[in-house]
Amino acid sequence: MATTECTVRGMTCGHCTAAVTEEVTAIPGVADISIDLVEGGDSTVTITSDSEIDIDKIRSAIAEAGYELVG
Amino acid sequence: MATTECTVRGMTCGHCTAAVTEEVTAIPGVADISIDLVEGGDSTVTITSDSEIDIDKIRSAIAEAGYELVG
Repeated sequence: MATTECTVRGMTCGHCTAAVTEEVTAIPGVADISIDLVEGGDSTVTITSDSEIDIDKIRSAIAEAGYELVG
Repeated sequence: MATTECTVRGMTCGHCTAAVTEEVTAIPGVADISIDLVEGGDSTVTITSDSEIDIDKIRSAIAEAGYELVG
């Protein structure tokens, strides 16, 4: 298993984390996601996957949910 | 038509306003809702209805969405 830690800006509540979770877990190979929500700030998102996930796929999924990958 | 203005605490984003809109517009007689979002604060919610709506029904709908009617 691989773990990817990244930073997502702009989530404010559980609806936001649910939207990100839905989009990210739809990426093939993603097994789990954990979000340490910083309301309105930069939240740490940890993604567990079968193998390394292309960061551009993660970026796209997060953008699809309405947020920005910043790190 | 009747208009009810009330204050709802704790909404932070468009997902929150969508949740409140869904619950409030499910009240029989409600024709429209307008939310002036104050992120994380007290937002003004204006409800237009065919006739006066019982405030307890509004309170319940807002609680169902996960927020608190404070005025």
